[in-house]
Amino acid sequence: MNASTKPIISGDLLKFQPFINYESILCTYFPDSNLKINAACMGVHFTPTDEVYIHAYANTHTRDLLSKGVRFSINFSEDFFEYVMAALRRKDHMNFIDELPRSAFIITESIPILKSAWVILECEVLDLPSSLIDRPVCKRREVPNIRAKVLSKNIYRLPQVFNNRSFNLSLEALILATRIPLYERYSDFYNDAIRTYNIIKKKIISWRDMDRFHAAYEVIDNYLIENGVEPQELSFF
Amino acid sequence: MNASTKPIISGDLLKFQPFINYESILCTYFPDSNLKINAACMGVHFTPTDEVYIHAYANTHTRDLLSKGVRFSINFSEDFFEYVMAALRRKDHMNFIDELPRSAFIITESIPILKSAWVILECEVLDLPSSLIDRPVCKRREVPNIRAKVLSKNIYRLPQVFNNRSFNLSLEALILATRIPLYERYSDFYNDAIRTYNIIKKKIISWRDMDRFHAAYEVIDNYLIENGVEPQELSFF
Ligand SMILES: Cc1cc2nc3c(=O)[nH]c(=O)nc-3n(C[C@H](O)[C@H](O)[C@H](O)COP(=O)(O)O)c2cc1C
Ligand SMILES: Cc1cc2nc3c(=O)[nH]c(=O)nc-3n(C[C@H](O)[C@H](O)[C@H](O)COP(=O)(O)O)c2cc1C
Repeated sequence: MNASTKPIISGDLLKFQPFINYESILCTYFPDSNLKINAACMGVHFTPTDEVYIHAYANTHTRDLLSKGVRFSINFSEDFFEYVMAALRRKDHMNFIDELPRSAFIITESIPILKSAWVILECEVLDLPSSLIDRPVCKRREVPNIRAKVLSKNIYRLPQVFNNRSFNLSLEALILATRIPLYERYSDFYNDAIRTYNIIKKKIISWRDMDRFHAAYEVIDNYLIENGVEPQELSFF
Repeated sequence: MNASTKPIISGDLLKFQPFINYESILCTYFPDSNLKINAACMGVHFTPTDEVYIHAYANTHTRDLLSKGVRFSINFSEDFFEYVMAALRRKDHMNFIDELPRSAFIITESIPILKSAWVILECEVLDLPSSLIDRPVCKRREVPNIRAKVLSKNIYRLPQVFNNRSFNLSLEALILATRIPLYERYSDFYNDAIRTYNIIKKKIISWRDMDRFHAAYEVIDNYLIENGVEPQELSFF
């Protein structure tokens, strides 16, 4: 319940380090209806001139929706449950909206934004001429396929969770969970990912810190099981 | 070069989530001389009434120095190199100051603070009556052994690096590096820690993101080798 209030300080004070990755939740309307919102976890990179570069994999809503002229928000939230909902897709995700409840959003005219976020950037998709694809040497393997400009930066509060190992490791666990269903069962990649996923859960339990993540890991565990992981491969708590 | 300027916004706007862990760098003067500064990576927990709880292991300067009435600063910086320097102790650390160059600090009367930090909390150590040790149910295994009150919160800028996997994983790698020398060579703990340390380095390299961490990992690698790890156990870049 932050973004419902006024910005606390000028957005110009927010300086991103250029070309490094920031994990965020992107939100945008589906073009057919203002009532349907897409939310997706995506890494974003900034240039020194406030452009944004994104690499969205094929088969994501984000890749389909963010065409030239479309507006979207980049939300920095600390609500791990929202990251989970924005990252895990249903099997039938191209037909259904798999995202957050409407109450999680503030509905502005052209852009939906997340109430839980401490910073919200309003953006508009630009062309990505092939001459630019390799120009902003973003620090990731994949070249970007979406370019946008930042229209405004809004700071609704100071961050509340930072330098927190449980939160950071949970993002790693979530990324693993998005990948596990894509790996061949019992391949080295699969086994390593399951192992690391379980190690992270056990660490958080041993730190007595699972209470604030419990509901989120239940969703992730169920997602993995629906996607072919055997319940006994996951360590329960 | 932030803390040399004025706070940008009231420190009251900074709300910590109670009892969760924040990784920070603690700085304090040695009592014998205002010219000697100790800097140490430490997890800190806050209560809703702005008290701070810390668990400092035996054999740390922090444990020795933070006795009742002593003032210290909690610094939230995004300079990984500084975390490394504040975490890795020399073999002869009880005799030498193993910390950062003086130019990294602003020297105030009673408390040294880190220039690179975006938030600095000035604190004073309180008693820790045994009746309180288990009261603030901090989310970590070890019960706290240092209690302090926050005298002031100073926000010198907005954070610049957040939700960044390379930075977060580097903190994990650093924690592993502080532990590896304590494990029995080639025990399961040792092997797992070395393996995870190498995986993190390789990930950051594969993200083309090592340039900003290179100097820091060189220090960590050398520290590990000085502490008995064979060079060929570490993957070089
Ligand atoms: C922290 C995090 C970062 C992610 N970054 C990306 C990314 O940069 N690009 C991408 O295509 N998917 C990324 N994903 C996976 C997507 O969130 C996932 O595929 C999601 O279902 C896409 O949602 P959409 O179909 O609504 O666009 C990330 C997931 C997490 C948890
Ligand atoms: C991210 C991080 C967090 C740490 N947290 C703690 C802690 O909570 N307690 C502790 O005793 N040591 C902790 N350490 C290890 C200390 O930083 C390390 O022992 C250091 O040498 C102590 O410095 P000092 O002797 O100057 O106090 C941590 C290290 C890292 C990298």
